[in-house]
Amino acid sequence: MSNVTVTKELISELRQVVEARNEQEVRKLLREMHPEDVAEILYDFSTEDSKFVIALFEGEYAVKILIEIDEDTRDRFLTNYSPEEIAKQFIEFMDTDDVVSIIRSFPPKLKDQIISHITDHEFAANIISLLNFDEDTAGGIMAKELVKVNENWTVAQCIDEIRAQAEEVSNVYTVYVVDDHDRLKGLISLKRLILAKARERVSAIMIEDVVSVPTHASSEEVSSIMDKYNLVVLPVADAIGRLVGRITIDDIVEVIKEEAEKDYELMSGITESVESTDKVWVLSRARLPWLLIGLLGGIVSSRVIGLYEGQLKIHPEMAFFIPLIAAMGGNAGVQSSAIIVKGLANNTLGTKDIFPKIIKELMVSLINGLVCAAIILAYNLFMSDSVELSLTVSIALITVIIFASILGTFVPMLLDRVKIDPALATGPFITTTNDLLGLGVYFLVGRLLYGTF
Amino acid sequence: MSNVTVTKELISELRQVVEARNEQEVRKLLREMHPEDVAEILYDFSTEDSKFVIALFEGEYAVKILIEIDEDTRDRFLTNYSPEEIAKQFIEFMDTDDVVSIIRSFPPKLKDQIISHITDHEFAANIISLLNFDEDTAGGIMAKELVKVNENWTVAQCIDEIRAQAEEVSNVYTVYVVDDHDRLKGLISLKRLILAKARERVSAIMIEDVVSVPTHASSEEVSSIMDKYNLVVLPVADAIGRLVGRITIDDIVEVIKEEAEKDYELMSGITESVESTDKVWVLSRARLPWLLIGLLGGIVSSRVIGLYEGQLKIHPEMAFFIPLIAAMGGNAGVQSSAIIVKGLANNTLGTKDIFPKIIKELMVSLINGLVCAAIILAYNLFMSDSVELSLTVSIALITVIIFASILGTFVPMLLDRVKIDPALATGPFITTTNDLLGLGVYFLVGRLLYGTF
Repeated sequence: MSNVTVTKELISELRQVVEARNEQEVRKLLREMHPEDVAEILYDFSTEDSKFVIALFEGEYAVKILIEIDEDTRDRFLTNYSPEEIAKQFIEFMDTDDVVSIIRSFPPKLKDQIISHITDHEFAANIISLLNFDEDTAGGIMAKELVKVNENWTVAQCIDEIRAQAEEVSNVYTVYVVDDHDRLKGLISLKRLILAKARERVSAIMIEDVVSVPTHASSEEVSSIMDKYNLVVLPVADAIGRLVGRITIDDIVEVIKEEAEKDYELMSGITESVESTDKVWVLSRARLPWLLIGLLGGIVSSRVIGLYEGQLKIHPEMAFFIPLIAAMGGNAGVQSSAIIVKGLANNTLGTKDIFPKIIKELMVSLINGLVCAAIILAYNLFMSDSVELSLTVSIALITVIIFASILGTFVPMLLDRVKIDPALATGPFITTTNDLLGLGVYFLVGRLLYGTF
Repeated sequence: MSNVTVTKELISELRQVVEARNEQEVRKLLREMHPEDVAEILYDFSTEDSKFVIALFEGEYAVKILIEIDEDTRDRFLTNYSPEEIAKQFIEFMDTDDVVSIIRSFPPKLKDQIISHITDHEFAANIISLLNFDEDTAGGIMAKELVKVNENWTVAQCIDEIRAQAEEVSNVYTVYVVDDHDRLKGLISLKRLILAKARERVSAIMIEDVVSVPTHASSEEVSSIMDKYNLVVLPVADAIGRLVGRITIDDIVEVIKEEAEKDYELMSGITESVESTDKVWVLSRARLPWLLIGLLGGIVSSRVIGLYEGQLKIHPEMAFFIPLIAAMGGNAGVQSSAIIVKGLANNTLGTKDIFPKIIKELMVSLINGLVCAAIILAYNLFMSDSVELSLTVSIALITVIIFASILGTFVPMLLDRVKIDPALATGPFITTTNDLLGLGVYFLVGRLLYGTF
């Protein structure tokens, strides 16, 4: 058992021996390490130092390190290598799906140069065919490496085939069964194969009930199918049912994470998938749009409040609660939307009828609105001498919470129905709308009440 | 191959035959279906109808349906069964980890009653021991079912052992190797076992380099280890290195999803894991805390603005831009925090030094602040005749965006360093603080400028 933890001491020790180009010591320090840990350490190293470290390892191990490094760092690191070096030192030791995910974003010319230096012709052809699929489809995620056997074979023939293919396919969980035309017919677990007699027919021991996806299935569909059926590996079939690849769960964990992050980014008002390591202008560009929408919202707010300039002159205390009303509308709306967005994503909404949800939301927001309104009423009656102001704030608050909540429930469900990402409802447009709504109600109520009393 | 899609027509057809208690027709409709699809259909059925449907299936199939149904629905559904029925019809066909995840939340008495009706003594004892572990630890997620062999055995003995254990263990990916004291020594993939000769020694073909976790590892640690090392299954060892269980990737996919959701909930201001199907008062309770914090923030805002009441009387136009300043501070802060929170969660922050990040954030926010300030300055100079107001809004805006961004970068990193969930920074406290900060700056600048001009 080796559970290495990467410590600061280890990193600084390693840095010294790497900078001294002391091969022997570097090897000694890294000997017991998993490639994933080495990848983690290399984040702190310059690309030249990384190149030195990686050159010390065998092909397969070096490749594992490379796969683990995040995309930006890897792309930068690979500029230190010629296309031929990339092909011979890395690509040839990889599975097709990893190759595709690494070289997909390269410029076409570089991609072609790398592929042209691959010795194994079939491997190169597989990569070219995978690159034709869209990145976010089953075809774009799948690997060509899989073990398949003919339905008419015996168990002994199967095991010979696995032996023949064992080198190529790194993780074997199941053996796929195809007919003479390569069409997917079933699968056999390795466990079943071990327990079967050598002369048994494949067709007699295979499971026929196999879930598969077409090449054009979206990565979200793939992830929800693997999740639903608890699959570790999922076969991919082409239009005429031929087995063309397999998708393993580790590729899908990424998709699941990205999906969850997408909602998070939308809510936080970031328009692209940025990381804190990105360049200043990339970060700036990704964040400016929401700020501009907020700015526009603020300008519209200023026009709304401007309508009541005369009243503000007489009752400047009306201004005190502008932030409260605006913030509460936004908050209540985001809460409602977030619950619906989550429910839509996890398929836990139950029925998709909008009406009962709106009724429920009405009750929830009525309770919360009443509680908040009562608290602020008590505070205002106690702290200020203006009954008008106290009533205005509370009436506006309860109205705003109810309206924002119902809008927050309705909008994501509507967006989902017209096939737009419902998470947009938690983003800048709706929160800004709720802010505005709140201000409108507040000043309207204020004018009415101050007039009345 | 069977890729069934659950259609509305199918559901309504099924509903009719179920309500008519027509066993034969129900069986016919469900014959080709996966248990996961049946579970999806049952959401729309009453618990009595669900009971009728599930009773038509064999033990293992019925159990798969039950496991797929979400927790609330399942708990409600199981109240239709006696403890003995639950044990005999469901529990005995399950893996230990599934049993534990289903009965953990039951009242202690019911739990004991169910366990007492389990016929297999060892199975019952395993469940009891698993229930002792905390829900969010490796011990609480792991299953007891695994295939283990002694390091001194031959490959032939291994295969006999797998045969003996095959009934119990449903998904076998790897065979674990232990010594005479049950301590984890290595593993053998099934592929390797198939390719090995019958007389080879286990110790000669096993992989010694095995990543494992202790029982007390948190579910987050487990998920990050499985993610990092791309593992489908992870062995769990006790304090003296004995192999006590295994965790499979499907259990961890749930953890990954929950983690991602936790950040989302924190940002949207929901305090518990609520679903839209929960009761009104649960939903209300989960949402009230953030609204109350928002309310408190609003009250403090009103005090801050109240300090400038006199000025507002003379210059009511100062009130127009209160929402803009407050909203922009909140937005800019959430954006910065979200990027850091994401980076911390994915380990893509690179170095954890705070200082360079603050500098970078300073530059990003300077760019965005300048752009926004320039736009609003142009707007104000064009639309209003008050140079003071125009300058106040722009100066306050740029200051607020910079401050909020830096705070938004600094706070989550600080929280992380003191082992508090950094996602808190995107929640109500910090956004409210940013709103306040904005208002304070705005009125201060306003007073200074109006005094000066």
